[in-house]
Amino acid sequence: MTRHAHPVIERALAEGRDALSEAEAATVLSAHGVAQPREALADTRADAVLAARRLGFPVVLKLCSPDILHKSDVGGVRLGLGDELQVGIVFDELRSIAAARAARWGGVLVQEQVPGDVEVIVGARHDSVFGPVVLAGLGGILAELLGDSAVRLAPVSPDVAHEMLRELRGYRLLAGYRGRPAVDLAALAALVATVSRVACDLPVGELDLNPVLVRAGAPGAIAVDRRLVLRRTEPVGPAAAPPGTREAVRRLLAPSSVAVVGASRDASKIGGRVLHFLTQHGFPGRVFAVTPNAAAIDAVPAVPSVAALPEPVDLACIAIPPEVCAAALRACGEKGIPVAIVFTSGFAEAGDPEAERELVVAARAAGIRFCGPNSLGVLNPDARLCASFSGALVATPLGGGEIAYLSQSGALGGSFLSRLWERGIAVSRFVSVGNQADLDLADYVDALVDDPAARVMALFVEGVRDGRKLCRALGRARDAGQPVVVYKAGRTVEGQAAVRSHTGVLAGDDAVWSAALRQAGAVRVGDMPALFEASVALAWQPPPAGRRVGIVSTSGGACGILADECRRHGFEVPELPAATRKRVEAEIPSFGAARNPIDVTAQILGRPAMLRNTLSILVEEPTIDAILMMLTTLADPLAEVIADGLVAVATGCPKPVLVGWIIAPSLARKGMARLIEGRIPFYDSPDRVVLALAALAEWQRLRGGGSGGR
Amino acid sequence: MTRHAHPVIERALAEGRDALSEAEAATVLSAHGVAQPREALADTRADAVLAARRLGFPVVLKLCSPDILHKSDVGGVRLGLGDELQVGIVFDELRSIAAARAARWGGVLVQEQVPGDVEVIVGARHDSVFGPVVLAGLGGILAELLGDSAVRLAPVSPDVAHEMLRELRGYRLLAGYRGRPAVDLAALAALVATVSRVACDLPVGELDLNPVLVRAGAPGAIAVDRRLVLRRTEPVGPAAAPPGTREAVRRLLAPSSVAVVGASRDASKIGGRVLHFLTQHGFPGRVFAVTPNAAAIDAVPAVPSVAALPEPVDLACIAIPPEVCAAALRACGEKGIPVAIVFTSGFAEAGDPEAERELVVAARAAGIRFCGPNSLGVLNPDARLCASFSGALVATPLGGGEIAYLSQSGALGGSFLSRLWERGIAVSRFVSVGNQADLDLADYVDALVDDPAARVMALFVEGVRDGRKLCRALGRARDAGQPVVVYKAGRTVEGQAAVRSHTGVLAGDDAVWSAALRQAGAVRVGDMPALFEASVALAWQPPPAGRRVGIVSTSGGACGILADECRRHGFEVPELPAATRKRVEAEIPSFGAARNPIDVTAQILGRPAMLRNTLSILVEEPTIDAILMMLTTLADPLAEVIADGLVAVATGCPKPVLVGWIIAPSLARKGMARLIEGRIPFYDSPDRVVLALAALAEWQRLRGGGSGGR
Repeated sequence: MTRHAHPVIERALAEGRDALSEAEAATVLSAHGVAQPREALADTRADAVLAARRLGFPVVLKLCSPDILHKSDVGGVRLGLGDELQVGIVFDELRSIAAARAARWGGVLVQEQVPGDVEVIVGARHDSVFGPVVLAGLGGILAELLGDSAVRLAPVSPDVAHEMLRELRGYRLLAGYRGRPAVDLAALAALVATVSRVACDLPVGELDLNPVLVRAGAPGAIAVDRRLVLRRTEPVGPAAAPPGTREAVRRLLAPSSVAVVGASRDASKIGGRVLHFLTQHGFPGRVFAVTPNAAAIDAVPAVPSVAALPEPVDLACIAIPPEVCAAALRACGEKGIPVAIVFTSGFAEAGDPEAERELVVAARAAGIRFCGPNSLGVLNPDARLCASFSGALVATPLGGGEIAYLSQSGALGGSFLSRLWERGIAVSRFVSVGNQADLDLADYVDALVDDPAARVMALFVEGVRDGRKLCRALGRARDAGQPVVVYKAGRTVEGQAAVRSHTGVLAGDDAVWSAALRQAGAVRVGDMPALFEASVALAWQPPPAGRRVGIVSTSGGACGILADECRRHGFEVPELPAATRKRVEAEIPSFGAARNPIDVTAQILGRPAMLRNTLSILVEEPTIDAILMMLTTLADPLAEVIADGLVAVATGCPKPVLVGWIIAPSLARKGMARLIEGRIPFYDSPDRVVLALAALAEWQRLRGGGSGGR
Repeated sequence: MTRHAHPVIERALAEGRDALSEAEAATVLSAHGVAQPREALADTRADAVLAARRLGFPVVLKLCSPDILHKSDVGGVRLGLGDELQVGIVFDELRSIAAARAARWGGVLVQEQVPGDVEVIVGARHDSVFGPVVLAGLGGILAELLGDSAVRLAPVSPDVAHEMLRELRGYRLLAGYRGRPAVDLAALAALVATVSRVACDLPVGELDLNPVLVRAGAPGAIAVDRRLVLRRTEPVGPAAAPPGTREAVRRLLAPSSVAVVGASRDASKIGGRVLHFLTQHGFPGRVFAVTPNAAAIDAVPAVPSVAALPEPVDLACIAIPPEVCAAALRACGEKGIPVAIVFTSGFAEAGDPEAERELVVAARAAGIRFCGPNSLGVLNPDARLCASFSGALVATPLGGGEIAYLSQSGALGGSFLSRLWERGIAVSRFVSVGNQADLDLADYVDALVDDPAARVMALFVEGVRDGRKLCRALGRARDAGQPVVVYKAGRTVEGQAAVRSHTGVLAGDDAVWSAALRQAGAVRVGDMPALFEASVALAWQPPPAGRRVGIVSTSGGACGILADECRRHGFEVPELPAATRKRVEAEIPSFGAARNPIDVTAQILGRPAMLRNTLSILVEEPTIDAILMMLTTLADPLAEVIADGLVAVATGCPKPVLVGWIIAPSLARKGMARLIEGRIPFYDSPDRVVLALAALAEWQRLRGGGSGGR
């Protein structure tokens, strides 16, 4: 229980009650300065009439009972009672309703009737992943039809609360609409901030102020209905992780020696595959096989047990049945091995969280940290480390990348890797984090902050246990100027069910994830391919200083689609100044389009310098912040010439230049290789190039960016 | 002007007025049976008071003036006038308002005040592409914030009108909400149907009934405010096309002889490229070059003019400067050539509609039909016809396809072709329709109905002139069981501007396009790649009988994403019956997931039959309508074995089987080739496989499908 708990709350918890009565909630909220109607709790008819007379008519009567949570549903709320007679009659009715339902009697709340033009919802809840969150939204029918609300991790300042209100689709209803004056936005924002504070200071499970009434042109925001459900504290988990996490991750990603526990000659077995890929891809450090079945596997010396290893290696790769993993981890720790990867499946993701807990207990006891279980492994191509059984390793990983890729799904993680490599895009680090029983996503992100190999981080997230910890790590990356791109799976109920069984981690509510990632400064993308599309854009191009986009294409059709998609993502495609237009006209055929979007037409075939020259003009044009180019069937060798020209112009340009290129890659291999060398990202379709630009612009906003470049 | 025009309309048009007064609109609508409030037009204060007394209080007063279109904005509508005194005062005020604005006096409309619980908008407008359309939506703040409306081409039956109401997000407000009874939905649907009829029978430019008032539990739907703007008839266009369109398209797509007008040895020129590709790809018919500069180009005989051709070829390919195209078309027609492709640009798309009109006039006069201008050409790989200058033709087109691809953008059209070929997917016909000055999209669709080569049609549309004509052709295709997939570019204002300049065709309003395509039975997709993804699914797999999806993957992460995307698209991922679950459990490892989604885990490496066997179980499971499989890094040779297994099970299966496969294609070439041979479509990411399934389900709905299979 939190220190500051109000006596009312302490009493309720002591009595074993989670839900406070409305009168109790009112008392607690009053102590925090929440404006509420004048009101009195009446136990008898006479009390009610007296209270109403004091408050002044009209009044509202509300039936109170710990057995009735939703008063309106049983007719327990009566508005607009205009005189003492009505109050008396209604009081009796409410008493009958309670009696008919055998509901415990909590009296009748007599409330002054507060006028209001707009109904607002202000609330908070304790999220199992992120802790206290606060919500502001429009009430009534708009809440039901629009789901119009803004969410943040609590607490928030009044400024952020204001920003939340501005995010609402129905903000116009608050800010003045059809000539009506605004409501008291300052009071409303202050209320949201207060509620967010309450959610942090008190053991709040759920707090709903619905409706809060506000009036056009009048001061104040009054919470006329209040529901407060308390939260019990959770049981304590396993002992906290020991210090030295960053060093453990460092060794995991760049070990000088490796032991494969459960190594095998059989490459269809996981232990065999891990050993095979490790040696095949030329890991330069010492490697040992731990297996009772051989004295050596090919050129790798084998020992029968971890204890028999000739030295405490940096990294243990554990690929043995689940029931013996805890013992192996303990043996590794006792041997002095600092970190392990547990490849084995069959833990929380298969419905056995107890077995996973045993792993953690064993590792803590023996002082070893670990990745997994249920991990596909770890890659660091720069160190020629391939400690993984991913099928992607049939190909050779590319070195020299600057994107660190952390994936909760091993299989999807590896399969996207193979695609990137085929396209000539390197990944500097890959970690399949598995079930995150010990080392979790936050630990990897944190360890990679300030690592030049992780200029950009790409995260495939299904869920985490401690959302605030992840946010702190993401915030550090943001502050260090390292964009983190996140794809979060498990958006809907059915998706969440699948995630739950997969890694044994509860997936959090989607709106909370969006709010948390945004507050922490991470770029969220909507699908899996966008994770890499955005990461490459962020690694290779500067973010745009503004939202004005210049478009060049060899196809009028592509111009239309690009302009369309830009607009949908809130970019502008402004007219070019007359002088600039003239310069473009001098470059392109008369039947092209010299305004923005610029259509250089299919005549590019005979005049390959057109694209390069047009790009130059847009690079110099101060009213343009970002440049999109759309190529269609430009095949080699012409493609190579054109790519060289674009790279020459775009290199060092402070504006982002992104290319859409729709062609069979086999027809333009050389041209595409030139763009990759020149760090110009290119995309499969008009839609995707605009999505990548949107990620760049989002990063610009998140890093608090004014002008472009970096 | 339409035959049935009301005398009020005839008078307005005769007086040169487009906008009717509200009283005039009321008269016209009454004649069509639209329920309206009792009301009277009062010219004097005394008249107004008398009228109010007759109608009964409270009343509404509305200022009428041909100079004031939006009464509310000037304070010209006053509600709730309770007695004669108020009516008199307000009448004087309204007269002052008119006087202050020097607005012509049209009297004051005195109206009974109609009670209403929900405000509805019913309207119609004349769309420049599709003609009369009808709209139903919720009024007031919901219209502003939600844009909550449903659109159809007019006329509609009351049944379809009902369907429109059910489409509204706020339908609950009409159908009964929080225990409130429903409004008179039958009256509302009848009103929508009536308005749609009015829009067809009268020269309506725009008709707004806003609001129409309805009451919970009460009969009727009353149009209390009415605005009717008339439409003048348009000038007549060029003479109608001659008959024989289907035959012209047939010759275009399968000519026995071709002349290239403007042929050249220089392959960087369009005429040179067309001739080059035509001969290089082995066109088996006779080919002639028309050029004054040579007696032959390689093996192709040349003549100096069209007139000098030794025979009237089937198809003329015209690639000469725009100013001589009309003369060339005329010469071709006079020679007896039935159809031409005009490759040349510089017509309506470059701002010269007059030059394009001349082409049409010349062609009509000489009896020749044509594709273009501004066309990239036509392909028919089965006939080895490559009459195009697309860069895609650097590669060899694949024959034996069943998707006919009609594209308004030539460049994007060609570039997607090259991608499909690289993936091993054939296209049976490709037409770059260009500016559609003569032959238009509707003509091509119409000509391909019942053509077995066009089992599926894929349309990239920017805009058309005659939307109803396109709808008729689409409807014929639907009735013939040929799915047509449409990607429509130009959704937003800026996109539309680019389209306008590109093909000189106005892009229609997006909501009308959606409504029209749906009514005509075409499957609309949201982006360019989906055009082919959906077409391949429709060509190779049956549509699902229902919305229950079974999911199998080697990756728990992929299971989560797929289930998620299924849900987002309105599919169910139901639990499997216990007996079926037992069968799955016997196939997969104990740490896999035997419920839906099924996770067979990475153990697939050692037990490649798992996927095939699990697929068999789902094929036999009656509670599953469609099956999605997600493969990750399955590389050859294992991929080939697994693909063969899936094809063996899926062939002949009445349920659709779609595969997501995330891997570098170079690692699984053989496996992918096997899936293509076996007609199992596969997709790049979890998101895309679900989109393809959604297209199949949409086709099932559009063809009025009950049970699956075909």
